[in-house]
Amino acid sequence: MTDAPILDTRPDAPVEPAALAARLAEDSAPDIVEALNGEAPEVAAAILTSLPFERSVEVLDQPELHCAADIIEMMPRDRVAAYLSAMSADRVTDVFREIEEPGRSDLRARLDAETRGAVDTLSAYPEESVGSIMTTEFVSVPATWTVGQTLDHIRQVERTRETVYSIFVLDPRTGALIKAVPLRRLITGEPGDTILSVAPDRRPVVVSADAGRTEAARLISKYDLLAIPVVNEANHVVGIVTVDDVIDAMIQKQTEDVQRFGGMEALDEPYMAIGFWTMIRKRAGWLCVLFLSEMLTASAMQGFEGELEKALVLTLFIPLIMSSGGNSGSQATSLLIRALALHQVRLRDWWRVALREIPAGLTLGAILGTIGVARIVLWQTLGLYDYGEHWFLVAVTVGTALVGIVLFGSLAGSMLPFVLQRVGFDPATASAPFVATLVDVSGLVIYFTVALVILKGTLL
Amino acid sequence: MTDAPILDTRPDAPVEPAALAARLAEDSAPDIVEALNGEAPEVAAAILTSLPFERSVEVLDQPELHCAADIIEMMPRDRVAAYLSAMSADRVTDVFREIEEPGRSDLRARLDAETRGAVDTLSAYPEESVGSIMTTEFVSVPATWTVGQTLDHIRQVERTRETVYSIFVLDPRTGALIKAVPLRRLITGEPGDTILSVAPDRRPVVVSADAGRTEAARLISKYDLLAIPVVNEANHVVGIVTVDDVIDAMIQKQTEDVQRFGGMEALDEPYMAIGFWTMIRKRAGWLCVLFLSEMLTASAMQGFEGELEKALVLTLFIPLIMSSGGNSGSQATSLLIRALALHQVRLRDWWRVALREIPAGLTLGAILGTIGVARIVLWQTLGLYDYGEHWFLVAVTVGTALVGIVLFGSLAGSMLPFVLQRVGFDPATASAPFVATLVDVSGLVIYFTVALVILKGTLL
Repeated sequence: MTDAPILDTRPDAPVEPAALAARLAEDSAPDIVEALNGEAPEVAAAILTSLPFERSVEVLDQPELHCAADIIEMMPRDRVAAYLSAMSADRVTDVFREIEEPGRSDLRARLDAETRGAVDTLSAYPEESVGSIMTTEFVSVPATWTVGQTLDHIRQVERTRETVYSIFVLDPRTGALIKAVPLRRLITGEPGDTILSVAPDRRPVVVSADAGRTEAARLISKYDLLAIPVVNEANHVVGIVTVDDVIDAMIQKQTEDVQRFGGMEALDEPYMAIGFWTMIRKRAGWLCVLFLSEMLTASAMQGFEGELEKALVLTLFIPLIMSSGGNSGSQATSLLIRALALHQVRLRDWWRVALREIPAGLTLGAILGTIGVARIVLWQTLGLYDYGEHWFLVAVTVGTALVGIVLFGSLAGSMLPFVLQRVGFDPATASAPFVATLVDVSGLVIYFTVALVILKGTLL
Repeated sequence: MTDAPILDTRPDAPVEPAALAARLAEDSAPDIVEALNGEAPEVAAAILTSLPFERSVEVLDQPELHCAADIIEMMPRDRVAAYLSAMSADRVTDVFREIEEPGRSDLRARLDAETRGAVDTLSAYPEESVGSIMTTEFVSVPATWTVGQTLDHIRQVERTRETVYSIFVLDPRTGALIKAVPLRRLITGEPGDTILSVAPDRRPVVVSADAGRTEAARLISKYDLLAIPVVNEANHVVGIVTVDDVIDAMIQKQTEDVQRFGGMEALDEPYMAIGFWTMIRKRAGWLCVLFLSEMLTASAMQGFEGELEKALVLTLFIPLIMSSGGNSGSQATSLLIRALALHQVRLRDWWRVALREIPAGLTLGAILGTIGVARIVLWQTLGLYDYGEHWFLVAVTVGTALVGIVLFGSLAGSMLPFVLQRVGFDPATASAPFVATLVDVSGLVIYFTVALVILKGTLL
């Protein structure tokens, strides 16, 4: 199993980087990454320095390597420049984002001119953009070339390109992108054929560097591409995003989505690697916002103080009723977050969704309401608890309130992602705790209003 | 933009499948899929029948096409056999899973022998397994071949293979897998070289057909592969999983994870396409389980009835305190679900996580507790509300209970994914509502216990 830790002797045995490096040298880069992720940055730096140069570069090139910036800062400065110049430009850019000044400027000055130029260009793109995950190492040829010329060119540059499976054919005069030829089509051609003769009929699918990285992921996934060209306004190819980058971006996005849905800011480092106070900050922010909003429930209850005093029995069901609203809301929100992300529904479909959630909320509320009424009737008639003289009216109140609250929860939960998208946020910023908080305050008001109507003249 | 609906004239204009087909014929298959997803199955079937044969096959081959089974059942039976035989075997298997008997047996009998054999083999694998997403259309050559022979072979079979970017080199005697050669390495070799001379040193990364499909996704993502060979016990290649399949599986898994985290069973169809009662069933199940568990809060409160009567002021903060426990629990659960999924922590690390969550829970609880105390002190001193003679002790009770409950929420929320993994479930089956429910009952007990200790002799 590749999962078994390779360096299992810690923390008892002393770590000998050179010996470990010798053992790791036979492993593939992703396996070395897994081993290094279990080590402190200074140990990882020592091991990498002992590995063959090519292998170290391969390891540093893996986005899965944690704390790459810390590791690089602990390596001898003169070797670092060589590593960075050999790494892919997009990865160097990512690592540079993590390095604090003045270390970053110092390292930048040591890069060779070509890498420095590429890194400067890539760093200029905002962090969530296509530009920030693209690489500049792609294959392009003028439209006047033949299949044979192109294949010869690929053989020469193969080692320095992130992918050679998509070849971009450019207008020889303007440099604009004309076609994207998959390598599998290229090798079916005769060497003397022109490259255009093996090109697909359709215009290539392209993406802009300023688009969000999820757009590149969506296009690659929709059109089953291995790489998508990133173009500027003049239709010049400025980079490519490969399917590997997209998978990494998808995994990162999934982690962020789950963490945000759990009601916190997304962490940008693994759970065990992140600093304690950074984690507290990412969690405390939303927790405080939710707490402050939830304080409205205390205010609402203060407002119903008179009713509470007269009918204490009503308080028994407050947690039950409120949580049901939150749960149905959280379900609806999770459904709509994904339906919007997958373009199964669009902004303008909000009313069609509402028309589905209203009967759904009523049905689900009726189911829970029936269980709630049954519980009270059962406990009362079996003598397990005495809900007082008007116990049946209390049961009806609870049942009716449940229908109203589950309906409200389903409707509010399903509309929240639309509202967020409408005002320009990612619908995935909606969280289960946020929906629950939203529904809690309204839930209390619904519950006490129903109680006022049903119990007027008896309990209230 | 590719997002604009292609058939925008509905529902007013009459649909003319032949005319629409003519307009769509120029589009790429994924765009046609998007257009068809907005149509009823009978219209989609009519359009597909009017499209050129090759294009229809391409469209039917896209897993993004909704209701493919319904569409196929509405097409003329004699044409369906031709479509199915031309489609990729893994896609036909998926579609067959959706078709009810006796339609399925009838269609199966119409398949050509080769497709029928492949579909029978693939159908035998359970739905979440690697076998269920693999395809049998790959390129393999004996180890005795040269680079030139292999390239000639690829040129001949290119059109019928899902990918030609990974070539599997087999032992000519036993048929066992020896190497996986990427096409980019192959084309750098001389035609007379043996295929083994361009093969990488390392053993190929493989996966078993019985492994979970997430394992294939993990390996493809870890090793940046374009396809992973699926092998049996004898190390024979029985199929491949391509990066496209993995992306589709990842998107599906992400949807399932978000829906389950939202507290419901995952839907297997898009939100707008799923039947109303199916959706109700998927939502009502968990909603009822949560409701029945949450009933324990009513029982707990009945147990504290005496205290409630004496100190009604305590009820005002019940929703606030309970929701804080649920929110901190939901945060911790979301963190650990992802950390376990990404192998950042393992089962045996549970105590290291607990040692992090205890100080985190205490810190977060202290923050919320301080806000809670401040609120009560402020409202009381500003004369906004009168919490009674012992208002300061009430404030201390609320503050202390918050520390205890947020600590308990963080700890319970972080341990739940470990417990689920330990007993053999996917940690992603943990949901925010489930954690909230878990924490609610204990939260009430913590609150009233703290109140009994602090308010004994005064309010209680």
